[in-house]
Amino acid sequence: MTIGHSTPSPAKSRIANSMGKARILMEALPYIKAFRGKTVVIKHGGSTMDDPELQSSFAGDVTLLAMVGIRPVIVHGGGPQISQEMKRAGIVPEFVDGLRVTGPETVAVVQRVLAGDINPKLVGMLNAHGSAAVGLTGLDGGMLSAQTLVPKLGLVGEVTRVDTTLLDDLLEAAMVPVIAPLAAGPGGETLNLNADTAAAALAIALNAQKLIYLTDIEGVRRSEEDAATLISKMSQAELGELLARGEIGGGMRPKLESCRAALAGGVAQAHILDGRMQHALLLEIFTPEGIGTMVTP
Amino acid sequence: MTIGHSTPSPAKSRIANSMGKARILMEALPYIKAFRGKTVVIKHGGSTMDDPELQSSFAGDVTLLAMVGIRPVIVHGGGPQISQEMKRAGIVPEFVDGLRVTGPETVAVVQRVLAGDINPKLVGMLNAHGSAAVGLTGLDGGMLSAQTLVPKLGLVGEVTRVDTTLLDDLLEAAMVPVIAPLAAGPGGETLNLNADTAAAALAIALNAQKLIYLTDIEGVRRSEEDAATLISKMSQAELGELLARGEIGGGMRPKLESCRAALAGGVAQAHILDGRMQHALLLEIFTPEGIGTMVTP
Amino acid sequence: MTIGHSTPSPAKSRIANSMGKARILMEALPYIKAFRGKTVVIKHGGSTMDDPELQSSFAGDVTLLAMVGIRPVIVHGGGPQISQEMKRAGIVPEFVDGLRVTGPETVAVVQRVLAGDINPKLVGMLNAHGSAAVGLTGLDGGMLSAQTLVPKLGLVGEVTRVDTTLLDDLLEAAMVPVIAPLAAGPGGETLNLNADTAAAALAIALNAQKLIYLTDIEGVRRSEEDAATLISKMSQAELGELLARGEIGGGMRPKLESCRAALAGGVAQAHILDGRMQHALLLEIFTPEGIGTMVTP
Amino acid sequence: MTIGHSTPSPAKSRIANSMGKARILMEALPYIKAFRGKTVVIKHGGSTMDDPELQSSFAGDVTLLAMVGIRPVIVHGGGPQISQEMKRAGIVPEFVDGLRVTGPETVAVVQRVLAGDINPKLVGMLNAHGSAAVGLTGLDGGMLSAQTLVPKLGLVGEVTRVDTTLLDDLLEAAMVPVIAPLAAGPGGETLNLNADTAAAALAIALNAQKLIYLTDIEGVRRSEEDAATLISKMSQAELGELLARGEIGGGMRPKLESCRAALAGGVAQAHILDGRMQHALLLEIFTPEGIGTMVTP
Amino acid sequence: MTIGHSTPSPAKSRIANSMGKARILMEALPYIKAFRGKTVVIKHGGSTMDDPELQSSFAGDVTLLAMVGIRPVIVHGGGPQISQEMKRAGIVPEFVDGLRVTGPETVAVVQRVLAGDINPKLVGMLNAHGSAAVGLTGLDGGMLSAQTLVPKLGLVGEVTRVDTTLLDDLLEAAMVPVIAPLAAGPGGETLNLNADTAAAALAIALNAQKLIYLTDIEGVRRSEEDAATLISKMSQAELGELLARGEIGGGMRPKLESCRAALAGGVAQAHILDGRMQHALLLEIFTPEGIGTMVTP
Amino acid sequence: MTIGHSTPSPAKSRIANSMGKARILMEALPYIKAFRGKTVVIKHGGSTMDDPELQSSFAGDVTLLAMVGIRPVIVHGGGPQISQEMKRAGIVPEFVDGLRVTGPETVAVVQRVLAGDINPKLVGMLNAHGSAAVGLTGLDGGMLSAQTLVPKLGLVGEVTRVDTTLLDDLLEAAMVPVIAPLAAGPGGETLNLNADTAAAALAIALNAQKLIYLTDIEGVRRSEEDAATLISKMSQAELGELLARGEIGGGMRPKLESCRAALAGGVAQAHILDGRMQHALLLEIFTPEGIGTMVTP
Repeated sequence: MTIGHSTPSPAKSRIANSMGKARILMEALPYIKAFRGKTVVIKHGGSTMDDPELQSSFAGDVTLLAMVGIRPVIVHGGGPQISQEMKRAGIVPEFVDGLRVTGPETVAVVQRVLAGDINPKLVGMLNAHGSAAVGLTGLDGGMLSAQTLVPKLGLVGEVTRVDTTLLDDLLEAAMVPVIAPLAAGPGGETLNLNADTAAAALAIALNAQKLIYLTDIEGVRRSEEDAATLISKMSQAELGELLARGEIGGGMRPKLESCRAALAGGVAQAHILDGRMQHALLLEIFTPEGIGTMVTP
Repeated sequence: MTIGHSTPSPAKSRIANSMGKARILMEALPYIKAFRGKTVVIKHGGSTMDDPELQSSFAGDVTLLAMVGIRPVIVHGGGPQISQEMKRAGIVPEFVDGLRVTGPETVAVVQRVLAGDINPKLVGMLNAHGSAAVGLTGLDGGMLSAQTLVPKLGLVGEVTRVDTTLLDDLLEAAMVPVIAPLAAGPGGETLNLNADTAAAALAIALNAQKLIYLTDIEGVRRSEEDAATLISKMSQAELGELLARGEIGGGMRPKLESCRAALAGGVAQAHILDGRMQHALLLEIFTPEGIGTMVTP
Repeated sequence: MTIGHSTPSPAKSRIANSMGKARILMEALPYIKAFRGKTVVIKHGGSTMDDPELQSSFAGDVTLLAMVGIRPVIVHGGGPQISQEMKRAGIVPEFVDGLRVTGPETVAVVQRVLAGDINPKLVGMLNAHGSAAVGLTGLDGGMLSAQTLVPKLGLVGEVTRVDTTLLDDLLEAAMVPVIAPLAAGPGGETLNLNADTAAAALAIALNAQKLIYLTDIEGVRRSEEDAATLISKMSQAELGELLARGEIGGGMRPKLESCRAALAGGVAQAHILDGRMQHALLLEIFTPEGIGTMVTP
Repeated sequence: MTIGHSTPSPAKSRIANSMGKARILMEALPYIKAFRGKTVVIKHGGSTMDDPELQSSFAGDVTLLAMVGIRPVIVHGGGPQISQEMKRAGIVPEFVDGLRVTGPETVAVVQRVLAGDINPKLVGMLNAHGSAAVGLTGLDGGMLSAQTLVPKLGLVGEVTRVDTTLLDDLLEAAMVPVIAPLAAGPGGETLNLNADTAAAALAIALNAQKLIYLTDIEGVRRSEEDAATLISKMSQAELGELLARGEIGGGMRPKLESCRAALAGGVAQAHILDGRMQHALLLEIFTPEGIGTMVTP
Repeated sequence: MTIGHSTPSPAKSRIANSMGKARILMEALPYIKAFRGKTVVIKHGGSTMDDPELQSSFAGDVTLLAMVGIRPVIVHGGGPQISQEMKRAGIVPEFVDGLRVTGPETVAVVQRVLAGDINPKLVGMLNAHGSAAVGLTGLDGGMLSAQTLVPKLGLVGEVTRVDTTLLDDLLEAAMVPVIAPLAAGPGGETLNLNADTAAAALAIALNAQKLIYLTDIEGVRRSEEDAATLISKMSQAELGELLARGEIGGGMRPKLESCRAALAGGVAQAHILDGRMQHALLLEIFTPEGIGTMVTP
Repeated sequence: MTIGHSTPSPAKSRIANSMGKARILMEALPYIKAFRGKTVVIKHGGSTMDDPELQSSFAGDVTLLAMVGIRPVIVHGGGPQISQEMKRAGIVPEFVDGLRVTGPETVAVVQRVLAGDINPKLVGMLNAHGSAAVGLTGLDGGMLSAQTLVPKLGLVGEVTRVDTTLLDDLLEAAMVPVIAPLAAGPGGETLNLNADTAAAALAIALNAQKLIYLTDIEGVRRSEEDAATLISKMSQAELGELLARGEIGGGMRPKLESCRAALAGGVAQAHILDGRMQHALLLEIFTPEGIGTMVTP
């Protein structure tokens, strides 16, 4: 250290640091202004649900959304955990015309995993971060009514009616609903729903601003093998063409079909986000650098 | 009256029948008047939970209560089903000083059975009868906070705080809360609660008119072996004496301790009813012939 | 007591009796569910108003309706009592073209009997049964405006406007309005209304679920002399044909004309019930065996 | 018209006239400010009720009070009309220890005159002036409960409970309650009340700002024969002394006793006004020259 | 006048006087009934703003309106005071094509005079008379948005959007908004508005019953020089013709154009009143002798 | 750096950057949770009011507070601008016993600068950042009543009453009140208030969570010349001792006296912040590194 030259004093660097913080907080202002009072339906699922750090980051993000006046509604799946539990329960898969038959025993396992494992775990985590989360299934308050999709497949449902009375009450009270995708069938029996389509149905019925799918992929690619073809933003029309071309497959296809349905039903923005990235939700909603793929009308 | 005089015509007997119906409905009037707008906490449990006919009778009773403006809150246990599931899961019981240690694995089983099996089943049954039931655990909306009862026993909790915000909202909206007795521990971990004491804590916090235990016994007997010593009604003082004499044991003792606590906490009436009798709830609440045992201050 | 045969033990018969009670209460459930929150306009009149037992049965029925959340509105007439009082007052009937002229003196008698005798008596009886009844005339709160029906007949009115502000307030507060069929004429003078048509006008304005005429006849008969031709249920179209055939006469004709008007004005169900039967209201509304005649669109 | 002198031009006199009007309206400002939102209980009665011009002036005054946001509550008597009707009905007075026995027949006459004649007439007149008046008796909505004053005198009541639910609802909706002084006895029977004491009981229960007796006398005189001893204003203490001296008799004594009770019960101002003077109410409330006698704590 | 005939006693003359007062108050009743709950936008301006007596009369009138439940909204100008202040500040007028250029310095003076002098003075005066006045500019709560009228003239705006949220809140709370005619430009800069057109824009947005211009002229004359041609009342059509004839000039023309715009925008009545006359507002609104000129659709 | 090892890809650094942003947003969570729904009174003043960049940073901070549900209330002074304007207006200072006499002419200048210059400028700036700011003086809605502090000094006031009706309404509607420190004197005349004490009076009346003084100094120093003696946090008791020692002088003394008064009046936290630092408010409220000096009870 030579005369006349000082290393940056701690005070100065502290101020520079503070200014940086302030700048980032101010950057969030227009997003808070745009989205407060709006409902955001978030489908949370996939392999990321088993990573405690990602779970904690997710719980923090949702809590922050709720705290600034945005209305998050969480819908969760549980595919891997259900498969594991079915194996453990020794349920032998049965098929008709190549499709899995879902009998009462299977639905009981699904319900036990969704409502008995995943849902309370999510609620506990959200509340530990400061939310007032409330765990629900689509049966509660008559929220989701469904009919069997294909009779011979058994207890797999498609939504026929959404009653938002209970959700409206909870959102008005600033609580965070966490919903397991089960529905009441015509005779009151429990039906299993696809979580992606359930999320879209709820987003439409709640007149949501955003429907967000947290997945274990970076976003939608024009060409599946080429990471460089990641689509950052597309219109409803472009989504239609993409689906028509038939190149999208796997788990992404039903998600994109649900996005299309949601937009057609009045949802303003649909997103495919990479749930493996910490704070993906926060960054998407509160910073200018949107991440993943956004579809708008 | 001479020979050839006809038997009562169907019309007359139909009228007599109708008058009987009307009389019974009118008989309910003073009870509806007395209890509408009041909260009634009902602990539902025991072996009766496996009898479909009794379940249906229970669901009908609760729905009728809700329909005439009474506010039922259901708390359920699940002892037998939990034991069975633990066995199935191959969890080996561990004891310290003769008491069962409840580790995280056990709590996970408890949660899965209560929140994943029994709770949605009750909700589905109530809704099929016309209620707007909402399944909850004590974790939801921060409803039940607890601390571990005896540290070395693990994750068994005793209630330290009841937040009725969520329940108040649901009751105001004429919904029927169905609550699994789980609570959030100091660190956000799930604790298992005794359903009887959880029901009493909720009854006190909700300023309930009645706390009702649906059990698989006729009521409280002065002498346990003698059915003729069934107590139909007793005062808080008499209950105190009965407990002091130390003759009451088994599962009845904690129920009566909870009754005592509830009355001390401001609940107006505590009941031990025979859940094996169809429509026990309805008959207790809406007819002059009270059944089971009632304790009042 | 002989082998193999026991007389029913008191306990058993008591239980059988209780089960009977419970079954009847449960039978009412779907009706309570269907009608709670709905408005039911009940025209109460005729000779049955002088029978204390029938009055008490009526007051009990209305109170039970109000207690389970149905909104009863009572409209009463007072023909016989008015005739008697006019005689006592020595008013000599005057006729123009064969129709009775209703002068100011007559209206004063009508008002005195309706508002001063019958109305407070009904209110007192309802309140003694536990209702919060409020006695009104169509003048109160500007509820009923009318014009003279035929100028030369004097102060007989036909309703031109119904203002439900006052009734809406009372119903919202769970009170039971009891209305004497008087209205304010164009110059503020009191006009006498036909109670049957006033009830229909109120039912339409209140968007009532049901309009019920309690009369001193069993119901509508296809052929007036033949009790076996009692019509249990008919459609609006059938009612139109019946009236067109011109066979219905006497007091029944204006009631049925009012039913037709009410259905045309949006009321869902119109009933002619036998007010001489105790608890006719209760049985019609809460049991599957509808009584009297029901007309639906 | 001579040179140099002009008669006031019409324009000028019109302006002078207008300024006079404006001055009088402005004079009312502080009184409107002081009393809006406050309840004023007005006992209307006596011989002035038969004078159509005075009735119309009264109805106009009450309507103006209601229009500027003051909450008038009218209680009316009907002594002279009742006496006349009893005579007409040929009821022979019966006495016990020199006091009139009031049997069921007499109460029926009282009810018919109050609820059937005077009350609807007042309501009609008020509504014709633009009020939304609602005629009630103390039976309505369980407003006034009473017990018999002296058992052997029969159905004369003294107020034991005032339920203001109905009145609060009506006042909140800017309606003008007009109340006949009848009450429900312990068994639900109708009891006749003294209108002066009923007005005081209502003023206390409604936490009224003013209790006003409209009588057929100028006000309270220190010495009954000497018009020059009219008391314009006195304190509660002075009223106590005046009553203690025992010189006040006749109909004025019970009015002053009621004033004393009302002030003791929290009413801010009690007035004896001359109902024979047109617009007495208006002048008392809206102008600086208070008229009649005012008593304040 | 003969012997034995007394001069009118003071009491009699006092009563005559009182009756006169009562008559004038009663005369106001139909106007209060017609206008309570309605919004009245009053443009206050011109030379009368400097006369303390007229200011006090204005403040009293507005307060009385507010007290009886009418909703006054005051818009004020400040032309003379602004000119005077600009002179004092030594701002040299600049013209383009003969029109005054309004630069930032001028707007600062306008703002200082309107918001810093006239507005708080009016608020203080109104509050001293008993109003709850709140001083605002069109910037507050985003009430008035504007664009520059003619770009080269600088910061003179025309209203593009009115947000009544703030005004609705204040009127609901019975407060009296006092508004200086400033607006926010597209870039957030302050724009100066013509007070007459601002008042009309506010009257339309508030769905006002009346728009009143208090000016220093008697009213609108058919022929400007002839006082005898004062128009007391005209229709929207007649106003259109009058403006089309092109004879109306000076400051009256923009006022009448604003009246036309207001009526076209749904305002029910527009008035030109003589603000030099004390209590002009009161007399116009509360007495049958309307003053000035009224235009109605 | 060896072959085969890539330099960090832009994507990675972008992710690192994003994580940093997310961390800072998450850091704000506990503060938002703690302060939402709470009122924060901010005294804005001093030389920083003339720096456009600092003004913009201030406007952004306040807007962000409002957006996340905190309730900011701004009180501003205007010392330097007032002095400048008085000079310009040529007002010759007058003194009595060495203290400045504040005559009506001076108050007019104060009002013009505060209400006509500074207040609308702040409102405009806040609204341009997205707030719904409303400019007020203490006269509006009768918010601040005062009496003259020392009669011979003229129109300088001390607050005697705070009416928060208007502020409560605006805060409930999520608007941001911006208040110039003027009050109504006993006779309705405008009195000038010290902005620091006005802010404290408002903070007490509003039951504020925080009272923040934005000054042009870093914070409170134990020894005024020694920057190293900056006090970061002290208790109410320590503040008392500091003031008692008498070493604090200049403009800081009245601020600290106001802090002491505010804490005594129930305000939870009082702050002296350096308004020369950009986003001082944001950093103080939303980050763990509190800045300036905080005093707590």
